Amino acid sequence: MGGDAPKSPFAPKSFPALPAIDGIRIAAAAAGVKYKGRNDVFLAELAPGTQVAGVLTKSKTCSSAVDWCRTVLDKGKARGIIVNSGNSNAFTGKIGEKGTKHMVQAAADALGCKPKQVLVASTGVIGVPLPGDRISAVMPTLIEALGPDNWNDSANAIMTTDTFPKLATATAEIDGKQVKIAGIAKGSGMIAPDMATMLSFVFTDANVPSAILQKILKDGADRSFNSITVDGDTSTSDTLILAATGKAGNKPPSSPSDKRLKGFVAALDAVLTDLATQVVKDGEGASKFITIDVTGAANKKSARRIGLAVANSPLVKTAIAGEDANWGRVVMAVGKSGEPADRDKLSIAMGGVTIANKGEGVLDYDEAPVAEHLKGTEVHIEIDLGLGKGAARVWTCDLTHGYIAINADYRS
Amino acid sequence: MGGDAPKSPFAPKSFPALPAIDGIRIAAAAAGVKYKGRNDVFLAELAPGTQVAGVLTKSKTCSSAVDWCRTVLDKGKARGIIVNSGNSNAFTGKIGEKGTKHMVQAAADALGCKPKQVLVASTGVIGVPLPGDRISAVMPTLIEALGPDNWNDSANAIMTTDTFPKLATATAEIDGKQVKIAGIAKGSGMIAPDMATMLSFVFTDANVPSAILQKILKDGADRSFNSITVDGDTSTSDTLILAATGKAGNKPPSSPSDKRLKGFVAALDAVLTDLATQVVKDGEGASKFITIDVTGAANKKSARRIGLAVANSPLVKTAIAGEDANWGRVVMAVGKSGEPADRDKLSIAMGGVTIANKGEGVLDYDEAPVAEHLKGTEVHIEIDLGLGKGAARVWTCDLTHGYIAINADYRS
Repeated sequence: MGGDAPKSPFAPKSFPALPAIDGIRIAAAAAGVKYKGRNDVFLAELAPGTQVAGVLTKSKTCSSAVDWCRTVLDKGKARGIIVNSGNSNAFTGKIGEKGTKHMVQAAADALGCKPKQVLVASTGVIGVPLPGDRISAVMPTLIEALGPDNWNDSANAIMTTDTFPKLATATAEIDGKQVKIAGIAKGSGMIAPDMATMLSFVFTDANVPSAILQKILKDGADRSFNSITVDGDTSTSDTLILAATGKAGNKPPSSPSDKRLKGFVAALDAVLTDLATQVVKDGEGASKFITIDVTGAANKKSARRIGLAVANSPLVKTAIAGEDANWGRVVMAVGKSGEPADRDKLSIAMGGVTIANKGEGVLDYDEAPVAEHLKGTEVHIEIDLGLGKGAARVWTCDLTHGYIAINADYRS
Repeated sequence: MGGDAPKSPFAPKSFPALPAIDGIRIAAAAAGVKYKGRNDVFLAELAPGTQVAGVLTKSKTCSSAVDWCRTVLDKGKARGIIVNSGNSNAFTGKIGEKGTKHMVQAAADALGCKPKQVLVASTGVIGVPLPGDRISAVMPTLIEALGPDNWNDSANAIMTTDTFPKLATATAEIDGKQVKIAGIAKGSGMIAPDMATMLSFVFTDANVPSAILQKILKDGADRSFNSITVDGDTSTSDTLILAATGKAGNKPPSSPSDKRLKGFVAALDAVLTDLATQVVKDGEGASKFITIDVTGAANKKSARRIGLAVANSPLVKTAIAGEDANWGRVVMAVGKSGEPADRDKLSIAMGGVTIANKGEGVLDYDEAPVAEHLKGTEVHIEIDLGLGKGAARVWTCDLTHGYIAINADYRS
C-alpha cells in the first residue's frame, strides 16, 4: 500500500544529517515481510549499560510486541531494538506471541544478549501471522551492516503509508558535557491498524538513569506525540522508545527536575516535537498543517483536551480544507470536549485575527487577511477560554478527499 | 445550503400519515429568516395542562434557546413550541438572548400564554443575530394555519441540510385506553453548527406526569438519539421535546416503572428509534447505513461507549465506504474506547459471518457472503467482548467523499 498515495506537500526537500551517537550502531535490510524491493527491517545495537524508557499505546487491544516492550522497559536497560514494517503482528493471538518471541530471539542471538534485553516493534497489516523466519534470515545481513550513520536507511525501513522518512536531531549540555540526540519516526494516519502505526526511536549518548529518563520521556511525549492527531484513531502498536548510552560521560542527574537537565529536556522536546509534527505533515490526505493554541483553560490538561477535541472534529478539519473561517465549528468542538468552558468568555482567532470575542462573532472583522491565511498551507487557530491559566499547543491536519481516497477507495 | 447536496439514497419513497393528537395544533410558515421560498418557522399549540419533558445538548457552549428550554422544562408544563430554521442564534451573546426572548414573547402573545410556557429551538447559521422581527411578523399567519394535521409542512419547515423530512408514529394502550404518538425530527450531520443541529418534537395524547415523562424520555433518548452518530460532533442546540396533552384520559401512571406504561414506553422507543435512524440515513454523504451490535461488554454503558467508538472511527467508516471487511480497524476502535476489553476474547462478525474470533482473525472464513453483504446499503457489524452481559445497539453511516464535499467544498 505504501507509495500508492501522492507524496505529502509537506515532504521536506532535504533531510537533516543525523550525528553518530556513541554506543549506538544501526542497520536496515530487506526481508520481504510484505513489501518487495525495499528495506523493511531495522536493527539497533545498544552498548552495554544503555538505559531505556518508553511510552506505549494505551489501547486495550495492543499487540504482543507492545506487551513484550512493557516487560523489557520495567528493567530499564536494553541491548537492542528490532523493528519490522509490512506486518503489525497485531490480533494474531498465540501465533502472534510466538512471532514476537521468534523475532526477539533472533535479534538477541545475533547481538549476543538475552531476549529480555531486546525491544521490538512491528507495523503493517493486522491479523496476519508474522513471517518471523524471513526476519531471522536477514539477521546476518543486519549485523554485517551495523554502523553509526545508517539513519536514512533506518528511517526508510520502518515506513508504511508514510510518504517521506522522518528524522530529527539536537544537542544539549549536561553539566558542561555536550550530549547528542538523534531520532527517527514513522506514522501517517494517527493510525491505520493495517498500515500506519506511529513508531519512534530516539537515541542519545547522555548518561541518565532509566527512571529519570522515563519521567522526562513521558512529559515530552505529552507535549509532542500525545498532542498530535490525524484522525483521532489510536494504534494497537504505537511505540516511542528513548535509549541513552551514557557514553557522553556526564555525571548522572539526581532527579527529573535536576536543573542540570534543563537543556537536555529542551533538546529532547525539540526532537520529539519535530518528529511528531512531521507525522502530522505526512497525515493521510493532509493539505493544511494546523497549529491550535489553547489558552485561558482551567488547567494544562483541560487545555490539551480542548485542543484535541477541536483538532479531531471532522467539521473543523473539513472547514479548514475548504479554507472557510468557520469559527462556529470551533465553538461547537470546544463545547463537546466536556471541559470547563463559558460561552460568553470564549474568544477565537485565525491567522492572528480575532473573529469571535467573548461569546459573540466579531461582525466587522477584517476578512481579507484571514482568507489569505487560510489559503496558505500552515493554519494557526487560537482559542482563549478566558477562565484560567491552562495552556497547550496541539497539531493536526485537514480532512480532505485524499483521506477518503487512501482509506476507502484503495482496498487492503 | 439546504438542497445543494444530492438526496440521500435512503430518502423514503413515501411518508407515514401522522394522526391528529388531541390537544395539539401545529402550523408552518415562511418567515424568510434565511431561506427563500420555503417554510422556516414551526409553531405548536399545546392544550392547557400539557406535560412536557426534554433532553437537551450537553454542550458547554449551548445556545440561548437551550438555556431557555431548561427553565421551562423545570416547571414540567408548556403551552407552545416555536422553532425556526436558517439561523441557530448560537454564539450571538446578549443579542442572542434578546432574539430568543423576542421569539418566545411573540409566540406567547399569539397563543395567549406566558413566555415561560413556550419552548423554543433555532437551527441554522451560527453567530449571526436572529432576525426576530421576521419571526414575529408571521405569527398571525401561523395562528391562522394552526390545525391538527400539518405534520408534513412542519417536518419540512425545520429542515436545514436534511435531504428529506423525518416523521414517525405509533400507538399503544395505557390501562385499556388507546394513546397515540406522533413525532418529527431534523438532522443530517450529527451536527454542523452552521446548519445541521438535531431537533425532534414528539407529541402524545397520553396522560403522564412530567417527572415520569422526563425519566421515560431520557431512557428512550439513550437508546435512540444518543445511540446514533454521523461524525461524532455535538451540536450547541440539540433539542428533543416530548409533549403529553393527557387528552386520552388514561389514569396517570404512578412511577416510570409502572407496568401499565410498558406498551407506551415501547411505542415511544419505536418512534424515537425510527426518527433517530432516519437522521443517520440522511447523514451527510451517507452511502451505507451501519448497525453495530455490541454484546458481552462489562455493562450496558460500556457496550454503548464501545459501539460509539467504532461508529465514530473515521477508519472504520471509510473501510465500510470502501466495502472492505477490515475488522482490524474495528479491533483498533474497540481498543481506543478505553472500556474494558480483552484482545484474546474479542470476536467480530460482519453480515452474520464471524471474521475474527477470540483474538485471532478467522483465516479461512467464507469471504463471498461478507463481500456481498458489504456491497449492500445496510451493513451489520457484531462485536462480542466475551466479558460480561452488557449489550447495546448503535447506528452510524459511512464516511465518503460526499461528506467532504458537503463540509469542505461548499462554503458557508
